[in-house]
Amino acid sequence: MPTMSDFHSAADRVRNWGRWGDEDEIGTLNFIDEEKMREAGALVKKGAVFSLGLDFGSGGPQGDFLFRNNPIHVMTVDGGDAEHFVQHSKDWTANPTAHQISQFFADNPFRFNDDMIIMPLQAATQWDALSHTYYDGKLYNGFPASAVTSQGATRCGIDKVIDKGIATRGVLLDVVAHRGDEVCLDPAVVITPEELDEVADRQGVAVGRGDIVVVRTGWCENWRRTGERGAMATTGLSWTCAEWLHEREVAAVAADNLTVEVQQSEIDGVFLPFHLLCERDMGMMLGEYWDVTALAADCAQDGVYEFQLIAPPLSVVGAVGSPVNPIAIK
Amino acid sequence: MPTMSDFHSAADRVRNWGRWGDEDEIGTLNFIDEEKMREAGALVKKGAVFSLGLDFGSGGPQGDFLFRNNPIHVMTVDGGDAEHFVQHSKDWTANPTAHQISQFFADNPFRFNDDMIIMPLQAATQWDALSHTYYDGKLYNGFPASAVTSQGATRCGIDKVIDKGIATRGVLLDVVAHRGDEVCLDPAVVITPEELDEVADRQGVAVGRGDIVVVRTGWCENWRRTGERGAMATTGLSWTCAEWLHEREVAAVAADNLTVEVQQSEIDGVFLPFHLLCERDMGMMLGEYWDVTALAADCAQDGVYEFQLIAPPLSVVGAVGSPVNPIAIK
Amino acid sequence: MPTMSDFHSAADRVRNWGRWGDEDEIGTLNFIDEEKMREAGALVKKGAVFSLGLDFGSGGPQGDFLFRNNPIHVMTVDGGDAEHFVQHSKDWTANPTAHQISQFFADNPFRFNDDMIIMPLQAATQWDALSHTYYDGKLYNGFPASAVTSQGATRCGIDKVIDKGIATRGVLLDVVAHRGDEVCLDPAVVITPEELDEVADRQGVAVGRGDIVVVRTGWCENWRRTGERGAMATTGLSWTCAEWLHEREVAAVAADNLTVEVQQSEIDGVFLPFHLLCERDMGMMLGEYWDVTALAADCAQDGVYEFQLIAPPLSVVGAVGSPVNPIAIK
Amino acid sequence: MPTMSDFHSAADRVRNWGRWGDEDEIGTLNFIDEEKMREAGALVKKGAVFSLGLDFGSGGPQGDFLFRNNPIHVMTVDGGDAEHFVQHSKDWTANPTAHQISQFFADNPFRFNDDMIIMPLQAATQWDALSHTYYDGKLYNGFPASAVTSQGATRCGIDKVIDKGIATRGVLLDVVAHRGDEVCLDPAVVITPEELDEVADRQGVAVGRGDIVVVRTGWCENWRRTGERGAMATTGLSWTCAEWLHEREVAAVAADNLTVEVQQSEIDGVFLPFHLLCERDMGMMLGEYWDVTALAADCAQDGVYEFQLIAPPLSVVGAVGSPVNPIAIK
Repeated sequence: MPTMSDFHSAADRVRNWGRWGDEDEIGTLNFIDEEKMREAGALVKKGAVFSLGLDFGSGGPQGDFLFRNNPIHVMTVDGGDAEHFVQHSKDWTANPTAHQISQFFADNPFRFNDDMIIMPLQAATQWDALSHTYYDGKLYNGFPASAVTSQGATRCGIDKVIDKGIATRGVLLDVVAHRGDEVCLDPAVVITPEELDEVADRQGVAVGRGDIVVVRTGWCENWRRTGERGAMATTGLSWTCAEWLHEREVAAVAADNLTVEVQQSEIDGVFLPFHLLCERDMGMMLGEYWDVTALAADCAQDGVYEFQLIAPPLSVVGAVGSPVNPIAIK
Repeated sequence: MPTMSDFHSAADRVRNWGRWGDEDEIGTLNFIDEEKMREAGALVKKGAVFSLGLDFGSGGPQGDFLFRNNPIHVMTVDGGDAEHFVQHSKDWTANPTAHQISQFFADNPFRFNDDMIIMPLQAATQWDALSHTYYDGKLYNGFPASAVTSQGATRCGIDKVIDKGIATRGVLLDVVAHRGDEVCLDPAVVITPEELDEVADRQGVAVGRGDIVVVRTGWCENWRRTGERGAMATTGLSWTCAEWLHEREVAAVAADNLTVEVQQSEIDGVFLPFHLLCERDMGMMLGEYWDVTALAADCAQDGVYEFQLIAPPLSVVGAVGSPVNPIAIK
Repeated sequence: MPTMSDFHSAADRVRNWGRWGDEDEIGTLNFIDEEKMREAGALVKKGAVFSLGLDFGSGGPQGDFLFRNNPIHVMTVDGGDAEHFVQHSKDWTANPTAHQISQFFADNPFRFNDDMIIMPLQAATQWDALSHTYYDGKLYNGFPASAVTSQGATRCGIDKVIDKGIATRGVLLDVVAHRGDEVCLDPAVVITPEELDEVADRQGVAVGRGDIVVVRTGWCENWRRTGERGAMATTGLSWTCAEWLHEREVAAVAADNLTVEVQQSEIDGVFLPFHLLCERDMGMMLGEYWDVTALAADCAQDGVYEFQLIAPPLSVVGAVGSPVNPIAIK
Repeated sequence: MPTMSDFHSAADRVRNWGRWGDEDEIGTLNFIDEEKMREAGALVKKGAVFSLGLDFGSGGPQGDFLFRNNPIHVMTVDGGDAEHFVQHSKDWTANPTAHQISQFFADNPFRFNDDMIIMPLQAATQWDALSHTYYDGKLYNGFPASAVTSQGATRCGIDKVIDKGIATRGVLLDVVAHRGDEVCLDPAVVITPEELDEVADRQGVAVGRGDIVVVRTGWCENWRRTGERGAMATTGLSWTCAEWLHEREVAAVAADNLTVEVQQSEIDGVFLPFHLLCERDMGMMLGEYWDVTALAADCAQDGVYEFQLIAPPLSVVGAVGSPVNPIAIK
């Protein structure tokens, strides 16, 4: 088993600190340039759109981490009671909210529904911001871990990447199809750089500078079928894939599972080393729970594994992650 | 001043109920087809990306409606205290969450930050779902208003439109530039169908089937400069623009203000008639608080007012709206 | 098995509608008068205080009902990062909250921590308001069910009972000790009116007008020991105890379990009939998850099962329940 | 104006660290003993109950601090739509919460309403925990400030004081009546130790060991009448009152305003010095926004300014404050 020393050597090789200046907070998204955007736009050929976002609601994938609940969606005004609102709330001065709503409804046919959400920013399909994971007291580009206070990330927050879209060329690497599995990979599978090359070769697609690589492990489809999360034992990328992505100057990496990488430990004494190398050393964002089921079916059918990919995070000020509904267009 | 009778006549003219079947819940998004998607992709020429989403945070535009607060972003784990976590929480059995987090950190360099958000789904840049507004007890396509219960919209929720992307051709109509105003329109301005035609003519752009029309009033820029919301008295479209959009078979309409339409009453006894005609009768979604400041500057420079537009809502189950970060690509 | 007809007969016998006027919203709390309060105060003899409230936190008893999560407690300002706050947030204009906090800390030794809670009002130890349960479209005293809109209870909300304290004489009925069980009753036990009489006799205590009866089933202690909730199969009062309470003119009833009453069905086709009779027909509030472990041990020791009881709900406007930390003083 | 040096001298004089052992987390609540509890119980003479809690809701006193919003009360199930729930949600598998609720309603007359609250723990009437304020990196009894992490206070949390009730003898000091003001004190008034003595003398009441002192400034009544919060400029106790309370071995202090103490600076360079001396040095909790309007009127009438006081915080694990509905009984 690799050691902490191996981890640190790899970290030294992939570290991009200073590559785009001392104040840079977007890391490998810098690889996306105007030419790349034009290339991505040119991939729209069939006019087919795929939404990779899971549902946000009480049926979501949370349940194992006490700090992350499924989204709580609550109605503040709903349709069943609009008339009662008018009748009961117009004099309810102790509840100014109810009173205000009833005023909109008085002597007027206009009615509205309204709602709120309470959710971890990484409740379902999401982006990790570069401030999400770290080690040795430093975030990406050497910013101090203490730059993330109880009021959010003053450095490397998700709000810093907004101008990038995030839009570029996406490439699906379908490891499930490559292995000939029906729904999903075996939980014990560790996807190596070599296997990524094999998958790309089989699909006839090349991964290049500024791309977002999206890996299919079958997790989403299996979870929908069985309800099994296997939270701490899912298949995914080996930590050694970080260097593979680094060499190819990829802009970001995503997968259809919780952590992109495998969850079983590959290095003695380091939990989630791929996260640490990507987010903290390389400055590369991870996309998680991206549901590629329908996209993969289409790619299998037409043999085209590249597409325009637009995955815009919400600009939550100081957030260390964001829900996202990534859109793939072919 | 027009009367309720005029409103009902217009509603009869624009109503799309049954046009796409009795079970349809996406309305005019049906106008977006594969050909339209290809047309939109072909608009990517420069490789320039514009993010139209406002920040989500305590500095947001809420404050006038008691049922809508600015987003509350809270850290559940933050960087300043990771080491104290390990030290103080490893035996804190009364707080299982703290205990669980401290276990991730024990004997391991891995550290993470995590966060939550509490927000109205229409707190800042957003889409109205078709279930947001209604009258006479009926939602779009005749579904009963009571289909929106205290647990959300069983009909016409935002989750029903996810497969559309929402991606298509976007057209900016810059009324501020047309009028030669520096920052924003005068609050008293009511934008008529005739003016929309003038703006399109001046810009040399045509609005067509399946497009999303995005109107610039200058609200966002003015608000950022001055902090003035003018919640109940902003400029916007006249209710009569609903028919203009209907005739052109537009897919959706958005603006850089709170309500797209003007807020002062145009029809005696009907609040927000444009909302009602669009959402309830036509089945047309409204996008609000879309910040087109940078996009408009670019369009003014290159004279190109059309672009690929990707504005994916989150699939919040049963929600009557969604935050969105719309992306325009030229 | 009793039938719906038996249920309706009992409801007719115990119904207190109109007893305290057509506008009454506090029901059997009307039984508490000044004399009762003096009687309760006189029960303070040893100077011993018992807090019956469970912890509110992630280790709470929720988990079976999707509409009730355990409380989510989040820090908005915490101690680990006060100095970083000053350093990193003083110019963070995009986050006005962080900026405001940093201003309190600038050039000043003053530091503070602050926090929020997100919780169902019935997350742990709590009171049901009279608006919590109902049938046939009517709440207590005949108010329409529609008086509870999406903005809360305009009738029979918890805020209506605040003036009552709620303070009075409390009587513990320790069914566990009566049966000689070590920790808790068997889940199959249905506590009948006859057994309540036996328990009171054995304890040498009488239940009277204006009292709050608190029943011990051992649920809290067993749950703390084993983590077992047995959500839908716990022991408790038989629905027939409603009449027993009615005859004695009790002010309220509480227990150390989720529902006071047994959860297995006693009447074909009526879920939780005791709730319906108490809250909707009698106007009697139920207290749930009251942890009497320490109190019961003291009562067993000194043989005194009566005490002054103060259980003040929070005046949440329009709420149908409230967390509470009931205090028993002997 | 006093200096930082004066502040530190006072702090040295009142500091109770170690007085009740190195592990003590409840401070001056230790002054409440069994004899005190009996004395308090004996004060129940008339059988009159006064609830000192403000309403929790959208009409609350928040608005000036961005980290504290008014409570957001939301219904998760409400009465207007129970029948629609059954009709529309029974097959709604995408929303498991709605589905679960509809199952309770199927073939059964049982109906329920349910709700949630989202609020700062110090949104309205409340207790500060001893972990709320501090300086020089130390909490009460020398615990490190870092013991309050992003998951809460591992030391001096509100959950640590639960066993105390909090119940004891309360004494109202009505400064408004003493000064002959009609509603409230002038914002410029700084209440000195000498004035507290005068008020006590005038009222014929003595403050002693284990008491909770409750001060009336008239803030609550004035706010209800005018809506004026005067957030950063309210009248209150001078910082020098800390020593007065220390000498009398008072258990806790409360007032009807935001901060108990005056908000204008009394010491150059120290914000809220009274908070710091009480909470951090003495280990004395502060109660804020306690509405004594009705209680004060009663005391003025019968001339009795002492009462049994029961003010139980919720046992929120690791919280630095708690909402409370304090009950005074005479």
